[in-house]
Amino acid sequence: MAEEKLPTRSENYSEWYNQLIQRAEMADYAPVRGCMVVRPYGWALWENMQQNLDKRFKETGHVNAAFPLLIPKSFLEKEKEHVEGFAPELAIVTIGGGQELEEPLVIRPTSETVIGYMYSKWIKSYRDLPVLINQWANVVRWEMRTRLFLRTLEFYWQEGHTAHATQKEAEEETLRMLDVYADFAEKEAAVPVIRGRKSATERFAGAKETYSIEAMMGDTRALQAGTSHFLGQNFAKAFDIQYLDLNNQLQHVWTTSWGLSTRFVGAIIMAHGDDQGLVLPPRLAPYQVVLIPIYKNDEERSKVMPVVEKLKAELSGFRLKVDDRSEVTPGFKFNDWELRGVPLRIEVGPKDVEKGTFAMARRDIPGRDGKSFVPQVNAARTVGDMLDQIQTGIFQKAVDFRKAHVFDPKSYDELKEVLQGGWAYSWWCGDAACEAKVKEDTKATTRNIPLDQEGGSGKCIVCGKPASEKVYFARAY
Amino acid sequence: MAEEKLPTRSENYSEWYNQLIQRAEMADYAPVRGCMVVRPYGWALWENMQQNLDKRFKETGHVNAAFPLLIPKSFLEKEKEHVEGFAPELAIVTIGGGQELEEPLVIRPTSETVIGYMYSKWIKSYRDLPVLINQWANVVRWEMRTRLFLRTLEFYWQEGHTAHATQKEAEEETLRMLDVYADFAEKEAAVPVIRGRKSATERFAGAKETYSIEAMMGDTRALQAGTSHFLGQNFAKAFDIQYLDLNNQLQHVWTTSWGLSTRFVGAIIMAHGDDQGLVLPPRLAPYQVVLIPIYKNDEERSKVMPVVEKLKAELSGFRLKVDDRSEVTPGFKFNDWELRGVPLRIEVGPKDVEKGTFAMARRDIPGRDGKSFVPQVNAARTVGDMLDQIQTGIFQKAVDFRKAHVFDPKSYDELKEVLQGGWAYSWWCGDAACEAKVKEDTKATTRNIPLDQEGGSGKCIVCGKPASEKVYFARAY
Ligand SMILES: [Zn+2]
Ligand SMILES: [Zn+2]
Repeated sequence: MAEEKLPTRSENYSEWYNQLIQRAEMADYAPVRGCMVVRPYGWALWENMQQNLDKRFKETGHVNAAFPLLIPKSFLEKEKEHVEGFAPELAIVTIGGGQELEEPLVIRPTSETVIGYMYSKWIKSYRDLPVLINQWANVVRWEMRTRLFLRTLEFYWQEGHTAHATQKEAEEETLRMLDVYADFAEKEAAVPVIRGRKSATERFAGAKETYSIEAMMGDTRALQAGTSHFLGQNFAKAFDIQYLDLNNQLQHVWTTSWGLSTRFVGAIIMAHGDDQGLVLPPRLAPYQVVLIPIYKNDEERSKVMPVVEKLKAELSGFRLKVDDRSEVTPGFKFNDWELRGVPLRIEVGPKDVEKGTFAMARRDIPGRDGKSFVPQVNAARTVGDMLDQIQTGIFQKAVDFRKAHVFDPKSYDELKEVLQGGWAYSWWCGDAACEAKVKEDTKATTRNIPLDQEGGSGKCIVCGKPASEKVYFARAY
Repeated sequence: MAEEKLPTRSENYSEWYNQLIQRAEMADYAPVRGCMVVRPYGWALWENMQQNLDKRFKETGHVNAAFPLLIPKSFLEKEKEHVEGFAPELAIVTIGGGQELEEPLVIRPTSETVIGYMYSKWIKSYRDLPVLINQWANVVRWEMRTRLFLRTLEFYWQEGHTAHATQKEAEEETLRMLDVYADFAEKEAAVPVIRGRKSATERFAGAKETYSIEAMMGDTRALQAGTSHFLGQNFAKAFDIQYLDLNNQLQHVWTTSWGLSTRFVGAIIMAHGDDQGLVLPPRLAPYQVVLIPIYKNDEERSKVMPVVEKLKAELSGFRLKVDDRSEVTPGFKFNDWELRGVPLRIEVGPKDVEKGTFAMARRDIPGRDGKSFVPQVNAARTVGDMLDQIQTGIFQKAVDFRKAHVFDPKSYDELKEVLQGGWAYSWWCGDAACEAKVKEDTKATTRNIPLDQEGGSGKCIVCGKPASEKVYFARAY
């Protein structure tokens, strides 16, 4: 609860983030190092995200299934790059039912291998393709440095795994799902993102190409908020996923995978949060509206509550919380729900009852400027319009913030300078050595090579060689 | 697919079950012994069950959260009976990130311990109570003999964990959730169940009382389809979950837990399935209706398809599948969807187009008797009514089947006899020795002591001593 002030973002961004999550009861630390408990308020946000994404996956032809948590260790070794990427991060089960296991099992860090194995059993003919399956699951990666939501040993995500007859179809699927993520991020979470291709260095272990959406957080650091991988025939060959084509010839399938995780909750917190706490996007917020009755005594209460009940009924189409706790003051409630980021607060006091009005306070615009007094008639429409305005408002604010912190440095020295407080959007020759030098000098990595480029060519910001694409450099979570 | 006939239930019930699940593409065996892959068709059924249950949990005041998969091994040892029950079934992680762990971690077999630990952090005052949290999760129990859905190393479930200020509230919660399960089972899954108290022998490890719903399968064996546990203060004491009461005195809370798992999918399969395959309850079936166009040539096709499209639009409120595959015959499709248990099949052929009718075939009544020809007008209403009839019909069929196979034996010899092909509903003195003798002699266990008893008293069917309650004995899954 809101007993003490949060640290401000400028004082200590990292402490602001950690304390906010715990005080707003989004998540807590589990007894095992690096694991988290997602508390009901945080999980309600994730459930809204899940439902929205799940609908989008189903609309694009996907179905859900559930693949096992435990994978034979040998499976990971079948794809060379994959095992190199994931071996250091594995949690390994060596004992089951009191016995040492003959073959150790890994807890899935991701499921390409076991799904590849199943697809090789299920896919026989071109008629079986495409296979478009998603699963909502928990995965475990043994990370050394952890942060609630951003990087935890266990996290929750969806992972889509598709198999196609042709390279073209698989490539289209990869980009289709990247677009689904981008649209979700911008329309639902109000988080503007850059869609782009990762450099070879930053690619998923085992992928031919990785695409990502990248978002700017409130401290200007970047966060990779979703990825979509074109896996080529790497896993098809490792797991022998073949089909008989129209000419009765055996062919390897082409596969993709794509994932978005509870890390995205961290993105929402850091993209919109302010020094008072969370600012949640109306389309995903567990509560869109909190209604607070204001009264000093029983007489006032008996005037106010019928209007509260009437408004509650009229606003039943929204996710509404009526906070009628008697043991705390209205001021305490204001702070509490501000901390928890409820987009819109409604107050009803005795004067409102007389005038037939209520007060609305926007979470995204503090103080007087965000407050308005409106008639009780047409409350649902008024509130709906206001929630739309808030949704648009916080998106635009994030777009403006990003715009103010993306730079086009003219020299390598300037690049190093701008990366202290923003992103650089610069020509890059594509050479991993140039990427490594920037990382060495600034801790910034290439985020992605955006799909939307203005074209033309230039000189690599690092080595000066000709470059045909621009890339975003940024320090990242 | 339906290339070969299924074994009949009377030939080999167990093979009927195993083959049906695989052929209907409900689930498949994972590479790790005893683990399963729930395929899209099976998962769609589980998702419908989840949504329905989740709504019921929320209506009774519960919220969802997510607790971690990995639990320090020492946690399980804090509640003596709990560890005795679960120790033999644990999967243990001993290596993380390439290092031997200082303390081994168990993969949760159930979450009372880790949730108890978190509740002890969160609960301070009577104002924090009750805590009513549920989670949808995967758990792992190292079972030796496994069956798809019924008993797998990893399974999916929900586990509710609540904490209360008083014993009475916790007991009420335990029975409230038992009723939620029973209502779900009967109204949604059309599976009649007996609500009752488990014997001490059959109690959950660490519970003061365990209640269950028990269902009869098509081979007359019993299946425990959901459980609700009153945990007393066992876990509150083991994990030091205390609150300050109104008088500022520290008190231990009273807790409950309750769970229903993917095992219930097995119950649906075995309660309703017949020799042609699955028979799914309309309220939960992934597809409620399959629409099959019937035509011999392009001319007929061009007549039939507009009516199919029109019906598809009119029936958009149902979960409808139009099967317009051209590479297989209508007969193949009939068998295929019968195997998959779609409750209602609609056929539209050239004659139907002329007459303004379509044909409906109920999955639960084979052949001519289940077939009717109805006008295309008011299709949605006709189909809705028919689905309701099917839902009621399969429930009644299951009730009748159970009635025909529950016996009231007059002697111990008769008890042994009836248990070969049904359940016995008998007086029992409550002594574990009598229970053990029945198990030894017949493999049947006490299922539960039903909450709804006719009262009175009698003599224990085993030892003849006075008994005040009747119990169900049955062989069980
Ligand atoms: Zn360069
Ligand atoms: Zn007895």
